[in-house]
Amino acid sequence: MSTPKSLSRSPSSTICATTLVSSLLTVQTSGRGFTDLSAEIAKFLKDARAKEGAMTLFIRHTSASLTIQENADPTVLEDLTTALDRLAPEDAGWRHDTEGPDDMPAHVKTMLTATSLHIPVLKSELMLGAWQAVYLIEHRARPHHREVVLQFAGVTG
Amino acid sequence: MSTPKSLSRSPSSTICATTLVSSLLTVQTSGRGFTDLSAEIAKFLKDARAKEGAMTLFIRHTSASLTIQENADPTVLEDLTTALDRLAPEDAGWRHDTEGPDDMPAHVKTMLTATSLHIPVLKSELMLGAWQAVYLIEHRARPHHREVVLQFAGVTG
Amino acid sequence: MSTPKSLSRSPSSTICATTLVSSLLTVQTSGRGFTDLSAEIAKFLKDARAKEGAMTLFIRHTSASLTIQENADPTVLEDLTTALDRLAPEDAGWRHDTEGPDDMPAHVKTMLTATSLHIPVLKSELMLGAWQAVYLIEHRARPHHREVVLQFAGVTG
Repeated sequence: MSTPKSLSRSPSSTICATTLVSSLLTVQTSGRGFTDLSAEIAKFLKDARAKEGAMTLFIRHTSASLTIQENADPTVLEDLTTALDRLAPEDAGWRHDTEGPDDMPAHVKTMLTATSLHIPVLKSELMLGAWQAVYLIEHRARPHHREVVLQFAGVTG
Repeated sequence: MSTPKSLSRSPSSTICATTLVSSLLTVQTSGRGFTDLSAEIAKFLKDARAKEGAMTLFIRHTSASLTIQENADPTVLEDLTTALDRLAPEDAGWRHDTEGPDDMPAHVKTMLTATSLHIPVLKSELMLGAWQAVYLIEHRARPHHREVVLQFAGVTG
Repeated sequence: MSTPKSLSRSPSSTICATTLVSSLLTVQTSGRGFTDLSAEIAKFLKDARAKEGAMTLFIRHTSASLTIQENADPTVLEDLTTALDRLAPEDAGWRHDTEGPDDMPAHVKTMLTATSLHIPVLKSELMLGAWQAVYLIEHRARPHHREVVLQFAGVTG
């Protein structure tokens, strides 16, 4: 472990937080792969007139998941798929195989990535970094209907 | 990456969020394995009269963790245990071995899964999907006393 | 799966939650490794006069991430680095290699750990366990300038 060489913190902003805005996002995936949800989340926050607070995403499934990853070079997403396939291969002798060879690897991949994400919102903007996008990862081979709960908690106006 | 083929969002609900309810859940595990916390969380939310908001779970340990996984076929949990054992085997030549061969793998497994979860609550219901349960995963071989902070933030009544 | 052998929950505390305090923490890393953010977070909460609520951390990058891990034996952090290197080795034939051999493994390691953390605050204290510290993990070989959004939501005074 290294201790911080240099570490600075901006002045804090303080505000009264009072509003909850919730919605259910339905995504039809086209089988294994990444779906970028960033624009839809930005639209949700704009519709909610969100100013300051935090955005929660929660996916209601155990064979699809969420991640925040690079939005620039599409080979990153290909490599992430390869990495997950290596960490949870189909031919690993899983006991749970009644739903097809891609099902148990999908559960493992979901466990290793995220089911819920929590992203701060400041000055009406989601605080994603310049190279970050929010993705839904479909881990099943076939297309699925997926539900993601969107929730903003904070100040609107 | 694929772009959404079809994507729909329900109308948003907006509400004033004002209450925090916090509690410490103590779980005595019986050694390596999964403990389903879903019923206890539902009871906590009912006792809190939670209506709309979000539920946070935070585990205060580094050799046990949280995950949301399938609640139907118990072989899924067996396979998840196998997957974690393969990703962090006991005989991998870890340097940290003073607390036994199962300790360092337990830290790795904790890092790869979740320490905190954030789950929306709508219409007095935790928004888990039909096949989702919230599990504490004990990664140590022996039974342990584990603490999980439960916190609801939102509207009660 | 095992069902809880013994499970107890403390009485709940209920409180009105109204304040949001947000800040941007800038961390200059010295290359691959762990940076302990716990003291800085405690200072942020003290400056904010945080009493009860929850602390969110969000890292604005896809080749550095967050984790909560053991704060006692430094060999744990060395072994965690080894574990991540094994799960995402540099010589795995990644397609995305324009930013150097350490870049794609850094994205995979970020996906497998956390981008956001949510930690309850009770009685003015972050509810970390005795052996827990909050770490930023730099996955790139060279030093980087990293940004972490800190946000407290709850009661101050």
